[in-house]
Parts: sequence; C-alpha cells; structure tokens
Amino acid sequence: MARRGYLLLGCGKNNTHGLQLKSYWEDDEAVATWEPKEHHLAFPGILNGGIIATLIDCHGTGTANAAAHKDAGDTNQHSMHVTGRISVKYLRPTPLNRPLTLRAHVTEMNENKITVSCDLYSNDTKCATGEVVTVRVDQALFLKSK
Amino acid sequence: MARRGYLLLGCGKNNTHGLQLKSYWEDDEAVATWEPKEHHLAFPGILNGGIIATLIDCHGTGTANAAAHKDAGDTNQHSMHVTGRISVKYLRPTPLNRPLTLRAHVTEMNENKITVSCDLYSNDTKCATGEVVTVRVDQALFLKSK
Repeated sequence: MARRGYLLLGCGKNNTHGLQLKSYWEDDEAVATWEPKEHHLAFPGILNGGIIATLIDCHGTGTANAAAHKDAGDTNQHSMHVTGRISVKYLRPTPLNRPLTLRAHVTEMNENKITVSCDLYSNDTKCATGEVVTVRVDQALFLKSK
Repeated sequence: MARRGYLLLGCGKNNTHGLQLKSYWEDDEAVATWEPKEHHLAFPGILNGGIIATLIDCHGTGTANAAAHKDAGDTNQHSMHVTGRISVKYLRPTPLNRPLTLRAHVTEMNENKITVSCDLYSNDTKCATGEVVTVRVDQALFLKSK
C-alpha cells in the first residue's frame, strides 16, 4: 500500500534518548515499526510494559495529529492534540529480541477530541492493545501552561 | 510516617538505563519520588506522557507485589504480579524541572488479581491519575512464555 507521508511523533527524531518511532499511512491505518533495545526489558527477554504504553501513546497522538491535519487540509494549524487518557491491555509477554509493529486507526473524531485504537504486534502475534483519547489544545497556551 | 521497607520495581536498580524508581510504605500508601531528566520531555519543560505511564506502571506493580508479599507473609513466593491493564488520565502538563511524587494504594485484592490506584504529583498539584490491574502469574512459567 502506498505511503502517504510521515507523521511527527512525541519522541521526536532529534531526541537521541527518545524511541525514534517512525510512522506512515497504509490507507486509513497508521503503521510504525520499532526495534527494542536490550535495556528496555521488564524481565529477561520480555519488553517493559511502560515502554509499550509509551509506544502506543506516541503512535496514538501522532496518528491523531496527522488525521487532524489531513482533515483540516492545513499542516500549520495553531492547535495540536495531546493525550488526555490512555489505556493499554497487555495480552501476552512481548519478546525483546525482534522488531515490533504498531497499527493504529481513528475510531472517533470531533472538533475537540480524537480517539485512536492501537495494537502492537510481534511478528503476527498481537501482544497489546490500547486506546488513546487525545484532546485539542491551543499550542502556544499549552506550552506556557506548565 | 515510618518507612516499612523498600519495594522492588520493574525498572530495577541494576538497569542503568532504567528510571531507578525507589518506593517505600507510608502506612497503607506506597510513595515514590523521582526526578525527570531533560531528555524525558514531550515538549520543552513538559514531561512525556509515556514516561508518566511507565512510572505509574512500575510503582503500581511494585505496590501490588509488595502488598501480595506482605499479605502472604512470605517474600520467596514462586508467583508474582504483572500488569494486565493500565489506564492513565492526564490532568494537566507535568513540569520537567522538579521532582515528582507518586502515591499508590491497593483498591482491590483477591487471589489472582490486585488493583492499584496511583496518583502523580508535582509539588502538591496532582498532574495525572492512573489505575494498574495486575494479575498473578507463576514466575517460572511467565519467564519462559515469551
């Protein structure tokens, strides 16, 4: 399926400590692959659940922002979507020694909120499934709000 | 309040890339403090939501395992509790430039499942709240299951 464009993600390509997740569209599904490092373990050979939540959060907000920009036809908006709520269900231990694939799609979208469903696979086995509810914020106000 | 003992946490004190979270009991509440590093950002000055989920996951499972051991009066059990489901609600941006406090307590406990509620504070401001549902697994079988 054709790649329609890369998404910007929370971790950011310039954060050398970040997860450096890269995503692309496959039709209406946003897909990302990522390779765990040895220190991302929870137990020997098993990926940490917090890292899984971080991947789903990053890929979920990236998908929401890309969907919002696509919908508005404008990539220079003053608003952005940030995570309001995340839930992750861990279906089985996720192996540490092979690449993972994240597959996300928008399940609900209105002016102020975009909800994204995101599954994580090791080979063809679904290891975790999550939902990210993002809320629209004014970018300048949000960055000043801390 | 008296400290009753340190908990073991997912990130592990020997993982130099880990978050090195340390927890202790204050009566029936498990408390941890943690200081963000500059590269844990989501945006300038604001902590990444995935790191927040990781902290709540680690502190939640640490609390569940400590509560299980305390309840059983036996720290050498062959079972342990791992995360089955986590949900986090982000209430406001979490500042990056000061220590955070996590406060957790057990809300439900039976033979196979322990649920923990966990709040994250910056100074006295609650920035995020989460729930971690942990499930009891046989340690040896779980570690072989990947």
